[in-house]
Amino acid sequence: NLTVKCRRSEYIEPKQPVFNTNSSFIQQDSVGAFTPRVYAGYTIYKGKAALTIEPKAPEFVALDSGAYKVSKEGMMLLQFAPAFGTRQYDWSRKQVFSLSISEIGTLIGLSGSDTCEFFHDPNKGKSDEGKVRKVLKVEPLPDGSGLFFNLSVQNKLLNVDESIYIPISKGEFAVMVSTFNYILPFLLGWHAFVNSIKPEDSVRFNNANVEWSR
Amino acid sequence: NLTVKCRRSEYIEPKQPVFNTNSSFIQQDSVGAFTPRVYAGYTIYKGKAALTIEPKAPEFVALDSGAYKVSKEGMMLLQFAPAFGTRQYDWSRKQVFSLSISEIGTLIGLSGSDTCEFFHDPNKGKSDEGKVRKVLKVEPLPDGSGLFFNLSVQNKLLNVDESIYIPISKGEFAVMVSTFNYILPFLLGWHAFVNSIKPEDSVRFNNANVEWSR
Amino acid sequence: NLTVKCRRSEYIEPKQPVFNTNSSFIQQDSVGAFTPRVYAGYTIYKGKAALTIEPKAPEFVALDSGAYKVSKEGMMLLQFAPAFGTRQYDWSRKQVFSLSISEIGTLIGLSGSDTCEFFHDPNKGKSDEGKVRKVLKVEPLPDGSGLFFNLSVQNKLLNVDESIYIPISKGEFAVMVSTFNYILPFLLGWHAFVNSIKPEDSVRFNNANVEWSR
Amino acid sequence: NLTVKCRRSEYIEPKQPVFNTNSSFIQQDSVGAFTPRVYAGYTIYKGKAALTIEPKAPEFVALDSGAYKVSKEGMMLLQFAPAFGTRQYDWSRKQVFSLSISEIGTLIGLSGSDTCEFFHDPNKGKSDEGKVRKVLKVEPLPDGSGLFFNLSVQNKLLNVDESIYIPISKGEFAVMVSTFNYILPFLLGWHAFVNSIKPEDSVRFNNANVEWSR
Repeated sequence: NLTVKCRRSEYIEPKQPVFNTNSSFIQQDSVGAFTPRVYAGYTIYKGKAALTIEPKAPEFVALDSGAYKVSKEGMMLLQFAPAFGTRQYDWSRKQVFSLSISEIGTLIGLSGSDTCEFFHDPNKGKSDEGKVRKVLKVEPLPDGSGLFFNLSVQNKLLNVDESIYIPISKGEFAVMVSTFNYILPFLLGWHAFVNSIKPEDSVRFNNANVEWSR
Repeated sequence: NLTVKCRRSEYIEPKQPVFNTNSSFIQQDSVGAFTPRVYAGYTIYKGKAALTIEPKAPEFVALDSGAYKVSKEGMMLLQFAPAFGTRQYDWSRKQVFSLSISEIGTLIGLSGSDTCEFFHDPNKGKSDEGKVRKVLKVEPLPDGSGLFFNLSVQNKLLNVDESIYIPISKGEFAVMVSTFNYILPFLLGWHAFVNSIKPEDSVRFNNANVEWSR
Repeated sequence: NLTVKCRRSEYIEPKQPVFNTNSSFIQQDSVGAFTPRVYAGYTIYKGKAALTIEPKAPEFVALDSGAYKVSKEGMMLLQFAPAFGTRQYDWSRKQVFSLSISEIGTLIGLSGSDTCEFFHDPNKGKSDEGKVRKVLKVEPLPDGSGLFFNLSVQNKLLNVDESIYIPISKGEFAVMVSTFNYILPFLLGWHAFVNSIKPEDSVRFNNANVEWSR
Repeated sequence: NLTVKCRRSEYIEPKQPVFNTNSSFIQQDSVGAFTPRVYAGYTIYKGKAALTIEPKAPEFVALDSGAYKVSKEGMMLLQFAPAFGTRQYDWSRKQVFSLSISEIGTLIGLSGSDTCEFFHDPNKGKSDEGKVRKVLKVEPLPDGSGLFFNLSVQNKLLNVDESIYIPISKGEFAVMVSTFNYILPFLLGWHAFVNSIKPEDSVRFNNANVEWSR
C-alpha cells in the first residue's frame, strides 16, 4: 500500500453556495449568438453526509498578439455537507476543498489499496498562515467496496475543528475518475487550444511556421 | 471475486419503442441554424436475445440569472429483446432497465472476475411499490470470454415473471465501457459547462470573479 | 493466455486508394458556413510493411420527424502494404481489413499476453461466398515489446494467397487504442446525439417528456 | 521490468520561448467569426528544474477536391528549465525535446516499473548529423512515488553537455497521461475528421457512397 502526501496552499477558497447565481451569465459571442453559462456538478448522497464535486473554469488573459493563454488553471471544488435527517443535508455547514490539477491526477491514478492525503492552508503566505488547516484523506473502505473520503478542518480563527466522512462506492469513484479525465484538459485550457486548430487556418499558417523554425 | 449490490428505485421507466419518433425534433438555435435531433444506440445481437444500449439526455432548468443547471441527470437505457428466430427479435416483448450515473460507474469499474447486481422498483414511493421488481445481474462467463447480462423482471400487476440472458463478449463489453466513459460527462451536463468556457468571456469575467471571491 | 476468435462477414470492403479524392467534398452547412471534408489516419512504417488505420464515418438516415438515426455503423479500415525498398511501400499491392465496432472493442480490451483472431468473408451471403477468406491475427511479440499484426488473404477468384506481417510496438499499440477509444462513439453516431443536447432545448422539451412518460 | 528504446531524428526542434507571441493570431472563420489562437501547456515546478509540456498542432494541406489531409503530424514539446533559486527557473537555458506520436503512445502505455529511452538527433540527414545527441530517459523513482524524467543533451557544435533531471509524482504523471490521451487524436487531425461528419451531409453522401463502392 502506497501513501501519497501532498502539501499545497490554496489562495482562493470559495465560500458561495453550491451554485452561485447572483449575476447575469448570458454572453453574446462574436457571431451574435448567446452562450448561456451552465453549471456542472455531481452529488453523492449518503447517510451522514453528501459530497458535491464541481469543476471551476480556468481563467485566460489576452496577449498583445490577440492570442490567449491560461492565467490561472481551473480546479475541482469538493463540497462536503453533513446530514441532519434522512436525505437532508445542511449546506450552510458545508466544508470545501479545492483539488489542484496534480491532486486530481493523484486521484485518477489511485489504485485499489492506495491511500492519499492532501494538506491545504488557505491563508498560506498571508498574515493568518497556519490558522486554518485542511486535510483531505482518501483511503480504501475496510470491506474493499470503495473509498472513504475524510475532510478535516481545523480553523483557529473560528474555533472550528470538524471532520466530515463519506463512503464512496467503487461505482461512484469510477464516475469521479471518468469526469476527472474528461475535465482535466479543460481545466488546463487545452480545449480552447484544440478549438483553435482548423485545417483552413493551418494551410495559411504553414508558410509562417516554416519561416519561424529557421 | 467481489459482488457489488445496489438498490435504487426508478421514477421513470420508459415504455416507448427503441426510438421514439412521434414528435417534431427539428430545433432552431440562436444563430438561426437548425440542430436536428439524433438518436444514438449500440445493439448486440445474440442467439437468444438482443441488447440495445441508448443514452438518455439530462434535463436542464433555466435560472433567473439566465444560466442553466441540470434538473435531472441523464441515464443509460438498456433494452433486452428475446429472439423468436434466426436474428429476429421480438421488441414488443422487450424488458427495459435504466442505469443511473453511479450504476454506469460500477460497470465501467468492473474488473475481470467481479459480479454486480442492481435492484430497481419503478414504483418506489408510489402505491404500487413492491409490485414490480427488476434485477440486473452481470457476472463473468464461465469460460472467461466475457460477461453474462441477466435481467429478471417480476411484475405482479401483469403476472409476469421473466428472465432474459445475453452473453456479452469482452470486445462488446469494451465497447460499452468506452461509450459509457464518453457519455458520462454528457449525462451530467458537463459538456454544456465546457462549451460555456471561452477565453474571450473569461477575460471579461475575471474582474467579477475577484470581486466575488472576497 | 486467452484467444478470442470472431467470425464476421463484410458486406463492403473498400478498394480505393488510401484517401479517395475524386469528388467535391466541400459542404455548405445550414448557417452558410462551409465544412470541408478532412481525412484522418495513422500510419506505422516498418521494415517489411506499413499499416494505415483510417476511420470510416457512419451513415445516417433522416426520419419523418426530422430527426436522424444511424443507418450503418462506421468502421476502422486497416490497410497493409508490403515494402519494396527502404521505407518504400507498394500500396497497389495493399490488403485491407475493416474492423467492426465489436472487433475494435476486442483490440481495445486486449491485455498483454492475449491473442485474437478475426475471420472475414467479404462475399458472405453472395454467390461467391467462401471464395475469399481473410484472417487478421494479433498476437504478442516473443520478446514482449509489442504485438504482431498478421493479415492473411486467400482469394480463390484471383488465385491470391498472401500474408502480410507487421510488428507493432507497445507505444504504437497504445496510440491505436487511444484513437480507437476516441473514435468509437463517433463511429456509432453518438457525437451527433451529444451535439443535439442543448440546455435551451431541454427546457422546452421537458413538458413534452413528462407528458410522454405517463 | 521492460526497457523500451526508440531512435528517431527530429527535423524541427523549436527554439522559441515557451509561448511564441510575435505574430497576429486572430483568425476570421467562414461565418465571419473570429477564432483567437490559444496556448495550452502544463508546467511542473520542482526544486531543481521545471518541466513544461505543450502540444504542437498538426499541419494540413488542401487537396484539389477541396478536402484537407494532415501533411505533418502534431507533437508534444517538452521543455526542461534548470532552477536558479527558490521557484525561479532559467528558461533561457532550457533544453527541449519533441515527442512523436508513437513516443507519446509509449509514455501512455508505460506501466509501474517500466523504463523507456528515446534518442533524437535534430540534424539527422543533414551535414551536422551526429553533432547533437539528445536522450530522454524515463524511469521509476526508487521509492515508487513516481517517475524520473532525465533529458541529456550533447551538443558538439556548442560544446554543451547537459543533463536535467526532474522527479514527476504519480499524480503529475497521471495528468500527463490524461492530457496525452486527450490530445493524441488532435495531433493526428482526427478531430477535424470528426467535425466534418454531420448527419445531414451523410444522407446526401449515401448515394454517392453506394455508387463508389461498386
